[in-house]
Amino acid sequence: MSSISFVFSAPSSPNSDNAIHLGYAADGYARIKGISALVTTFGVGELSAINAIAGAYAECVPIVHVVGYPSTVAQKNGLLLHHSLGNGDFGVFAKMSRYISCSVSILEDAREAVSLIDDAIRKCYTLSRPVYIALPTNVVQKKVDGERLKVPLDLAPPANHTEAEEYVVNVILENLRSAKDPVVLIDLLRHRAVAEAYKFVEKSGIPTFVTPMGKGAINESLSNYGGVYAGDGSSAGARERVERSDLILNIGAFQSDFNTAGFTHRTPRHNSIDFHSHGVTVRYSEHPGVHMNGVLCKLTARLCELDIETGSVPRNITPAEAVESSDPVERLDPVITHAWLWPRLGQWLRQGDVVVTETGTANFGIWGTRFPNDVVAISQVLWGSIGYATGCAQGAALAARELGRGRERVILFTGDGSFQLTAVEVSTMIRHNLNPIIFVICNHGYTIERLIHGREAFYNDIQEWDYKILPTAFGKSERFETYQVKTRDELEMLFADESFATSMKLRLVELYMPSDDAPRALITTAEAAARRNAQSD
Amino acid sequence: MSSISFVFSAPSSPNSDNAIHLGYAADGYARIKGISALVTTFGVGELSAINAIAGAYAECVPIVHVVGYPSTVAQKNGLLLHHSLGNGDFGVFAKMSRYISCSVSILEDAREAVSLIDDAIRKCYTLSRPVYIALPTNVVQKKVDGERLKVPLDLAPPANHTEAEEYVVNVILENLRSAKDPVVLIDLLRHRAVAEAYKFVEKSGIPTFVTPMGKGAINESLSNYGGVYAGDGSSAGARERVERSDLILNIGAFQSDFNTAGFTHRTPRHNSIDFHSHGVTVRYSEHPGVHMNGVLCKLTARLCELDIETGSVPRNITPAEAVESSDPVERLDPVITHAWLWPRLGQWLRQGDVVVTETGTANFGIWGTRFPNDVVAISQVLWGSIGYATGCAQGAALAARELGRGRERVILFTGDGSFQLTAVEVSTMIRHNLNPIIFVICNHGYTIERLIHGREAFYNDIQEWDYKILPTAFGKSERFETYQVKTRDELEMLFADESFATSMKLRLVELYMPSDDAPRALITTAEAAARRNAQSD
Repeated sequence: MSSISFVFSAPSSPNSDNAIHLGYAADGYARIKGISALVTTFGVGELSAINAIAGAYAECVPIVHVVGYPSTVAQKNGLLLHHSLGNGDFGVFAKMSRYISCSVSILEDAREAVSLIDDAIRKCYTLSRPVYIALPTNVVQKKVDGERLKVPLDLAPPANHTEAEEYVVNVILENLRSAKDPVVLIDLLRHRAVAEAYKFVEKSGIPTFVTPMGKGAINESLSNYGGVYAGDGSSAGARERVERSDLILNIGAFQSDFNTAGFTHRTPRHNSIDFHSHGVTVRYSEHPGVHMNGVLCKLTARLCELDIETGSVPRNITPAEAVESSDPVERLDPVITHAWLWPRLGQWLRQGDVVVTETGTANFGIWGTRFPNDVVAISQVLWGSIGYATGCAQGAALAARELGRGRERVILFTGDGSFQLTAVEVSTMIRHNLNPIIFVICNHGYTIERLIHGREAFYNDIQEWDYKILPTAFGKSERFETYQVKTRDELEMLFADESFATSMKLRLVELYMPSDDAPRALITTAEAAARRNAQSD
Repeated sequence: MSSISFVFSAPSSPNSDNAIHLGYAADGYARIKGISALVTTFGVGELSAINAIAGAYAECVPIVHVVGYPSTVAQKNGLLLHHSLGNGDFGVFAKMSRYISCSVSILEDAREAVSLIDDAIRKCYTLSRPVYIALPTNVVQKKVDGERLKVPLDLAPPANHTEAEEYVVNVILENLRSAKDPVVLIDLLRHRAVAEAYKFVEKSGIPTFVTPMGKGAINESLSNYGGVYAGDGSSAGARERVERSDLILNIGAFQSDFNTAGFTHRTPRHNSIDFHSHGVTVRYSEHPGVHMNGVLCKLTARLCELDIETGSVPRNITPAEAVESSDPVERLDPVITHAWLWPRLGQWLRQGDVVVTETGTANFGIWGTRFPNDVVAISQVLWGSIGYATGCAQGAALAARELGRGRERVILFTGDGSFQLTAVEVSTMIRHNLNPIIFVICNHGYTIERLIHGREAFYNDIQEWDYKILPTAFGKSERFETYQVKTRDELEMLFADESFATSMKLRLVELYMPSDDAPRALITTAEAAARRNAQSD
């Protein structure tokens, strides 16, 4: 039986079209604390939030979306109310949300409402996806029996059929016994089997890699941690090690384009065991309904039966370029490049940090950062809605503050183009006295888009802002600090500054980088996307 | 045969979540020029825009929404692409848009595409609602026969059945002959019958009133113009005149809550003739399919057959409070109140102005402003998505600049709370060198919400910004001017300043007003909404 607490992260009026920002914040909050809630207004508010909710659906993030509805009387009478389409149809928006919610509940009767709410929260948590609850104004005021609140909701994942689970575990153990060179690949897990996967990796000692979606789910300071595997975008040595393996345990397997550097992965089905919340697939044998949680627990418990040949332990040293570039030109260059930045960042990060990276150079660059233990990494690898990360960082910072000790820092990396979309969330952060560290990569626009299409096109340029002035427009100066960093030396100085590292104020850093520079993994992925876009039938 | 031109108003990258702002801009552009187009990206972009498109659907604004889709090959293969839900279903977003579009076209075959595009534009224009066109990346590159482009699309409203139209016109003329006290009520027209209604009103001399949604559709300097009719929220004298009428010609009739000051209108069915684009209703007789355009033209032509008793001509003088308050306390008060502001504004406006008012105090306040001839008024009376007006003003300013002479000024009135939602559009305006006049009503938050629920509640407060600084963060100072106005005298001075009135730069005015002051019509409407929300079944 798990316990559950969630907040209504609604910093401004609920019928706000900043509902999209709030949706991103709810997403970030849920990724830190396991679940979140978002309250919006009928029509205008919920549709503003729908992109954020769709993102949570795609990326398996549990958000309880509560929508304030007109009273049941007004609905019954088909009144022409504001925030409606003016056709008397009050069901239309719930129908739209059905496509991106794992449950839709319309609360009309107070007695029925309590079980509908419990059921929605249970589905949200166990299926790890958004649910939609419609709450009419007059139902809000009804009194209901509060006895149910004394019994915690059962949020445990469903237990597996014992014999089926035992069978699958035995098959996997046999496969492990006969494997010469097994590896573990950690992929899309969210909160569902992180603890189980963590224990398995630690106890087994099997060489372990993460996909971009799995980054942060595992302790990267373990001696059997080998880096990021994403086909052509893998970190040094990772690709060779994974692709020569004769048994890949793929926990949370999810092979989307950006998660595989444009489908350049080579993890053949006949060498793979895929672990999912909905079942396990061993090579070509499917075992639907055998959830990974129970299987992973039992596997970990029975590892002593094995004498696993882990093969060569993956390279697990600080990348050379993080200390000093091996290229003499690069070494002397004062310009901050992606090749230099991301490994260097890994040395500055601390245990407990939350690192949010925006779709663009940042969420590809972070593949090159080796984390200390217990770093939470957030990026929207599948949905990729630009502007997401800044809204998300606000929710993540709220959640981190509630958790307290151990989650002191939320660090955001976003591009200037992306930042412009949701920059007003800096106002929300200042309002709530949150203190994330915001790095705005100033590189004159949409570098990721330039790499896919229109390298010099005007639509990939942006209006140049003076980002440092923004917080001054939004609030009191005692709540924030701003910085400008244009060279490696300046960034080194900032990284060496302990008061910057531990300040209680919001910190906004303008980080200047060349517009034509990008992480290698992004270049590979963008080339693949461009080819696919042009592909003819 | 009408001619048609439309632009792709996409100031930033298409896969922007500012797509909601762009959607508002496309809405504003269409209200000025008759139609507009919006380009967004599959999934993330289109869902960000969906609230704006739903608003256009509700409010009958024609927008061609073009969505960039993955290639048909990628779709066929069910690839796990970014911006998708990760389930291989590429049809889901089009299904969501079906509820708020009058046509959805998926371009898959180049030969079919040309007729689908023509058909979508025709539907968009004639039905005056959004259409959705899905354009896969690989279809973009196909060559098609351009011969069709030489024949303009037929965008004329469908002609009425001659005998049915003749019958309806005769019935209306008979009704007019026997009426003692007829009035005309101009309501939701958009571009569909404005010219026809205008001529009818001018030639007939019948006392004419506008609803909030009809405001700006008719020449308010005509001697038979009588003000705004909205039940308890009507302008002085209008209510008495309309409600004692024995025949109300309601052109574009649309009785929604905010259009009738909370359903306080009293225009009984047995005294009403309703004109719609889909038909005409004479008292209790319906005439579906007899479009108002043909009927209004014929009525105007045959007015000479009538000797209409117009009854008392409505009061048509400048409201006393606009010159000087009759209340001695109010007269001496330096504070800018709504009762003083809106009539005063009417004297400062000029022929050709475009006036955009945000949902809140502004779109109720504008009821009290008598316009010069040929003022275009924009407000989202039905949909009421806060933040709309600033995005809309950007699109309206773009359209006004394209029209050139006669539409020099776009004037926006928004509240501080609303402005915060879409304030970054000031950056887009500066980028495109647009020069609207932006009045930000600084009254510490959501006054309209305070009046409905939670007068002192924290969620109706906002973070206090320094609005004047914002443009400096967004761009070069030679493109904008900022002002601060706290008293009536200061506003009088600003209104007297010809260089302010005609500057080629963007002007942003902080306009301070008390947080507990509101237009009378808003107070009435909010009280009705609060009662309705609490209404029990």
